[in-house]
Amino acid sequence: MDDPLIIAGREFRSRLITGTGGAANLSVLERALVASGTELTTVAMRRVDAAGQTGVLELLRRLGIEVLPNTAGCRTSAEAVLTAQLAREALETNWVKLEVVHDEETLLPDPVELLDAAERLVDDGFVVLPYTNDDPVLALKLQDIGCATVMPLGSPIGTGLGIRNPHNIELITSRATVPVVLDAGIGTASDAALAMELGCSAVLLATAVTRAQDPERMGAAMRCAVEGGRLARLAGRIPQRFWAQASSPGL
Amino acid sequence: MDDPLIIAGREFRSRLITGTGGAANLSVLERALVASGTELTTVAMRRVDAAGQTGVLELLRRLGIEVLPNTAGCRTSAEAVLTAQLAREALETNWVKLEVVHDEETLLPDPVELLDAAERLVDDGFVVLPYTNDDPVLALKLQDIGCATVMPLGSPIGTGLGIRNPHNIELITSRATVPVVLDAGIGTASDAALAMELGCSAVLLATAVTRAQDPERMGAAMRCAVEGGRLARLAGRIPQRFWAQASSPGL
Amino acid sequence: MDDPLIIAGREFRSRLITGTGGAANLSVLERALVASGTELTTVAMRRVDAAGQTGVLELLRRLGIEVLPNTAGCRTSAEAVLTAQLAREALETNWVKLEVVHDEETLLPDPVELLDAAERLVDDGFVVLPYTNDDPVLALKLQDIGCATVMPLGSPIGTGLGIRNPHNIELITSRATVPVVLDAGIGTASDAALAMELGCSAVLLATAVTRAQDPERMGAAMRCAVEGGRLARLAGRIPQRFWAQASSPGL
Amino acid sequence: MDDPLIIAGREFRSRLITGTGGAANLSVLERALVASGTELTTVAMRRVDAAGQTGVLELLRRLGIEVLPNTAGCRTSAEAVLTAQLAREALETNWVKLEVVHDEETLLPDPVELLDAAERLVDDGFVVLPYTNDDPVLALKLQDIGCATVMPLGSPIGTGLGIRNPHNIELITSRATVPVVLDAGIGTASDAALAMELGCSAVLLATAVTRAQDPERMGAAMRCAVEGGRLARLAGRIPQRFWAQASSPGL
Repeated sequence: MDDPLIIAGREFRSRLITGTGGAANLSVLERALVASGTELTTVAMRRVDAAGQTGVLELLRRLGIEVLPNTAGCRTSAEAVLTAQLAREALETNWVKLEVVHDEETLLPDPVELLDAAERLVDDGFVVLPYTNDDPVLALKLQDIGCATVMPLGSPIGTGLGIRNPHNIELITSRATVPVVLDAGIGTASDAALAMELGCSAVLLATAVTRAQDPERMGAAMRCAVEGGRLARLAGRIPQRFWAQASSPGL
Repeated sequence: MDDPLIIAGREFRSRLITGTGGAANLSVLERALVASGTELTTVAMRRVDAAGQTGVLELLRRLGIEVLPNTAGCRTSAEAVLTAQLAREALETNWVKLEVVHDEETLLPDPVELLDAAERLVDDGFVVLPYTNDDPVLALKLQDIGCATVMPLGSPIGTGLGIRNPHNIELITSRATVPVVLDAGIGTASDAALAMELGCSAVLLATAVTRAQDPERMGAAMRCAVEGGRLARLAGRIPQRFWAQASSPGL
Repeated sequence: MDDPLIIAGREFRSRLITGTGGAANLSVLERALVASGTELTTVAMRRVDAAGQTGVLELLRRLGIEVLPNTAGCRTSAEAVLTAQLAREALETNWVKLEVVHDEETLLPDPVELLDAAERLVDDGFVVLPYTNDDPVLALKLQDIGCATVMPLGSPIGTGLGIRNPHNIELITSRATVPVVLDAGIGTASDAALAMELGCSAVLLATAVTRAQDPERMGAAMRCAVEGGRLARLAGRIPQRFWAQASSPGL
Repeated sequence: MDDPLIIAGREFRSRLITGTGGAANLSVLERALVASGTELTTVAMRRVDAAGQTGVLELLRRLGIEVLPNTAGCRTSAEAVLTAQLAREALETNWVKLEVVHDEETLLPDPVELLDAAERLVDDGFVVLPYTNDDPVLALKLQDIGCATVMPLGSPIGTGLGIRNPHNIELITSRATVPVVLDAGIGTASDAALAMELGCSAVLLATAVTRAQDPERMGAAMRCAVEGGRLARLAGRIPQRFWAQASSPGL
């Protein structure tokens, strides 16, 4: 498909961005990533020191998948900025998936700390991909600050509740000029397809694949769903009608 | 994918069954069918006499797509049985998609006439694929009569309203022993993926593709979505949770 | 409210029809019925012989609530017709809530047996209020046969899933000429309000009240909700809009 | 009902807070307010100079309805704080409904300006009732700052889209210690009932009533719906089930 995703000037053929959290082991993760066709995978910097995490980085390099460090686990702007800076040194990339969550129960972003961190990281030369809630105002503010994408959630991390508020996602995609990436909440393939139909440019997910009963197969499912949703968006769907309409006359 | 759809002993690699109604012309239809990857396409027998329809049959033969005659436009059991018998002679197939609709406003099946026609056609040696509403009881009755599939609607024909009652579709798939085909109402790719996730064995659609702004691209979208939904069903999705769950601990 | 419900020429001020099943004891039931304001309550004839059931009939007489015998537990037209006839003799009413269910798992109506029983009971002089699925075609058929109401479910009995398919209920109310009563599936007050907003003339429910933690309070809740939904329907709601609209200019 | 709403130590018997915007004239507004049973009504301070607005204040005084000045139309914290201070002088109340919206298309709150204004107004001795989005984190922050309520939207102002994200509203009500008031988006009675069932302490609405075809009747509808939803919440609803459950055994 000649319809690349472009973020900060870089092209990706795959519109599925993955995370690594939740996988049972590296072998399972490898098969799932390959099946998903992803070209960009986010890794939690706070866990890089662990033995497993080093293995993840090696695995991604071997598979030719770009590493997107993230600041998962950070609760303040200061923590997130520091984590991003350490990641830049360690991984030699100025890209960062910015996460600044408020509390463990919801893992929802803290809008104030998030905005502050985004501004500081943009000023420091980072390509910032912020994980945000689905507030259309906060999305615009992140874009105006200079973020490379906006990445609203469909529902809280790990809930598998899908896209709880499609109206908000549509408000965001109808006004954003940077790519919108649906990040968090995806539970199954139809959720990913819907995200694309609502105008998102890509989908980011982790546990929907890594914690599925068969991660490899779910990786393949998500690949298909993202492609299907993207094609459907471009194809221009039929309108919804209250009453029936026969397919005839016609062929 | 080594996961064929089997209806009445015949195998299909594609789980997307298409209709031809609504296409602007044969050239558009051809591209859409090819993009969809369909191996089985339903054609309205009541329109076969029209010049365009003859062209459709030739097109399907050329593409190697199996023809599934349907009884669209029939309002009584008697009409439907007669139409099926004429189709069998004309097309040399004992397969029939059985449609007996009640009225033009809703194009909903008439449950009484439908059951009667299904019984008579099964007795007459037909392989009957009945278009039905989403009533789980009627679906069981059609199966018990000897139908080869049950094909509940997602919403009325041509509405593009998707699957209005997923609970009913799940009730049907959790109790059916023949393949369940979601027939009618599909508007976009995520609808098709959802059908498969609910346990349907295939999806049947026409105008969602033929009347899309770009039918070829929508044909490709539906192909991906059906595959994605099927894979997701087989992969075993994560459960839904009220509270968030971090992807860590883990990799 | 000067807006009576009229069924077969009889007027009711309350648009909430209740059932008695599921109540812990007669005292709880009495308080719940009084709080609900109901004027018409359905009783299962198959359970009348039980001691408790006799008490229910006495209770209803004392409260001045009309008894509507029902054929719950019947699986065939013959059983239902016989049960209705026994009820007519025992209770001296020719009204009957007609239930003919297909199986215990879903308690869904059997459309074929239901239609047959309805026709026979109408011919026998009954005022027939049939419990049906939400198929708009079956609803029209029941009306055409001479039923006094049509009573589609929102979802299967006792599930509390509310109205799974508002589109179908709207299709029914937009074409019916007899009162449409939403019967089965109601779980909470907003479900009852929605039924009325979709154009139903009344709501019938039992376990949503009798099995609530506080049946009396839930009876009162349903009374309010039915009134609120009815008033909202009559008042003419504002249209839905994609973009916001300030309440000003204006006062 | 002995179940008062308590905000900042003051008791209200009605849990329906209304706005005045959108009413055709004072006479229509009066009838709608009386029918709604409201005891607290918000008025836009920026429109007080207009002749009509003066009339509104007189009307509310005559009806014994408390005035809640709001800062509608303010786009920055500074504007909102100034408007609140002017309102305090003019109306001799230190209560304020705080609105700081980001843009005219969505009328969504600006989270940064809102938080700043809320903090300054609390410090200045105001009883602050902030209109906010449905972000559970922002709601907690507003509460922690000292706001007397949190008032999340169901959907953007004037859209009538109801509660787009019940999950978020539940996340808010399950963690808030101050009253949660559903503010904005209500279109019809069942929306209001649902808000209460999700655990909100009250509902605030304006155009759903003032712009209905019959504002007086819709005012009465909302009164019923809020009471019904509140009672249902207190009564403890039945759980949702996948399969049916007969109301028998039992009475």
